[in-house]
Amino acid sequence: MAEFELPFRKALVTGAAGFIGSNLVDRLLAAGVQVTGYDNLSTGSEEFLKDALARPAFRLVRGDTLDPEALRGAAQGCEFVFHLAANADVRFGLQHPRKDLEQNTLATFNVLEAARAAGMQGIAFSSTGSVYGEPSVFPTPEDAPFPTQTSLYGASKLAGEGMIQAYATGFGLRAFIFRFVSILGERYTHGHVFDFVKRLRADPSRLEILGDGQQKKSYLHVQDCVDGIFTALARAQGALNIFNLGCDEACRVDDSIGWICGSLGVEPQRVYSGGQRGWIGDSPFILLDTQRIRALGWKPRLDIRQGVLKTVEYLQANPQLFERR
Amino acid sequence: MAEFELPFRKALVTGAAGFIGSNLVDRLLAAGVQVTGYDNLSTGSEEFLKDALARPAFRLVRGDTLDPEALRGAAQGCEFVFHLAANADVRFGLQHPRKDLEQNTLATFNVLEAARAAGMQGIAFSSTGSVYGEPSVFPTPEDAPFPTQTSLYGASKLAGEGMIQAYATGFGLRAFIFRFVSILGERYTHGHVFDFVKRLRADPSRLEILGDGQQKKSYLHVQDCVDGIFTALARAQGALNIFNLGCDEACRVDDSIGWICGSLGVEPQRVYSGGQRGWIGDSPFILLDTQRIRALGWKPRLDIRQGVLKTVEYLQANPQLFERR
Repeated sequence: MAEFELPFRKALVTGAAGFIGSNLVDRLLAAGVQVTGYDNLSTGSEEFLKDALARPAFRLVRGDTLDPEALRGAAQGCEFVFHLAANADVRFGLQHPRKDLEQNTLATFNVLEAARAAGMQGIAFSSTGSVYGEPSVFPTPEDAPFPTQTSLYGASKLAGEGMIQAYATGFGLRAFIFRFVSILGERYTHGHVFDFVKRLRADPSRLEILGDGQQKKSYLHVQDCVDGIFTALARAQGALNIFNLGCDEACRVDDSIGWICGSLGVEPQRVYSGGQRGWIGDSPFILLDTQRIRALGWKPRLDIRQGVLKTVEYLQANPQLFERR
Repeated sequence: MAEFELPFRKALVTGAAGFIGSNLVDRLLAAGVQVTGYDNLSTGSEEFLKDALARPAFRLVRGDTLDPEALRGAAQGCEFVFHLAANADVRFGLQHPRKDLEQNTLATFNVLEAARAAGMQGIAFSSTGSVYGEPSVFPTPEDAPFPTQTSLYGASKLAGEGMIQAYATGFGLRAFIFRFVSILGERYTHGHVFDFVKRLRADPSRLEILGDGQQKKSYLHVQDCVDGIFTALARAQGALNIFNLGCDEACRVDDSIGWICGSLGVEPQRVYSGGQRGWIGDSPFILLDTQRIRALGWKPRLDIRQGVLKTVEYLQANPQLFERR
């Protein structure tokens, strides 16, 4: 994909040491942007920022998004914020309901206030296809029927979207909201491929699978995800821009397991917990309509199978990641 | 309208001393429900609960929805919660962005946690047509295209809806979400009729009007609103129930001013601030589709004009209300 002309020279990235954040930081630096990374290193890793930290255009501020003062300090001088810091565990919301509220909803409010105090021009936000709940339309477009939430994670991201939209209307901040499918690729540290590879390394003879293995989900490789973000930033014209980002295909959990096992050279017995959903709030079918971002010239380079295989290769080459959690 | 069989005997009402809350309390008591009212009396008035306080089936707990402990205490023994406490000032959100977040989003989380701790069966929530932002479909149905938020008030109510929906999915709480138009009637203490009557009493010769007077809005009388709530509680079957509540007509601000002036016997010079919107985030057209609640047998008894006139009469008979704020 061609180089992108980004409309700012200095950006703040929250969650900079995370999976998507650190990949975004590297790409921003490559595009000539000065980057302040902000991360509390609770789930992120400084290791992911090794290249970035070697560059004078990058600085890392260790701080929490629930600390408005520190965030305001880090935001000074930045023209744009990528707000990626979040609790990304859609599955465990019911075990600690306050976590999504604090780390996603309140954190997003703090980021908006910091952006306003710094006089920034805009914000990009990592939202999620989970805000569609269990949609009635597939592939699901951005203007699907008003959804209802089935997870605290989705609810907390919806709350973030709403505040960002109101700030865009009220304070003239340009807003870019990206509703991601699950993202895969280098530095990936949680999600089904991570869990399956980790467990198959420990016991290649048997694999327990939540649900019936027939849940259909869409995935996207992290570099395609960053390409999508840059495409929107360079080419979208609106004050408020909402884009789905995902592959135009879905795969079954069982398909994905087949690719993973083939890549690892294992043939485990598959043991299903049963039911259509892996857990309460799990959506049995996720497939997003990406016509809106495709109309700006974006398309993914890797399909889901390629993304899964690259992720397995990366995890096999970086087994230290399994020890962290 | 016939009497309603409500599916609980003991209910908690947050915002019990407010306009809608106190009317709801009176109706619940009349229906034989034991009621715990919860209110911090910051905008509510004990005066509105005079009748309720004389009844043994009612008790008032003075507390804040931002105080989880006090709320949990008040919730004990209740089977159902009506969560009406809120910052209802849609217009001034940009002057204090934290207020909607705290008093609406965080407060709703606290109410949900209190309901869960008390083992309640369900929650009813006063949401708003403002969650539709500036809709593309009129009248606007509950499953209108996924809206974007134009006010912090709407965003904070959307956040509340999302959490309630996720709690319904995850914790088995039955949820009733009501998206109101502006409510009018006895004990009404803020909104356009209040503002206009107050100012016309001070100066009947001149009336300043935000916008061009052509904004079209829908209104509903508070007794029709409570009838709608009771209809849903008695007759809706789902675990998650979302209902618009409003008149099936809209009136122009100028129409409403005409009725108010006629009722007061004044003929002020009308001075318009201009523009389609009264303030940033004001929706120039609000009209909700109420087929869903009508299918359960509800319809409003009063049209908008009747609701406005009854409200003017009430305010004229209770001029002390203009001194409170």
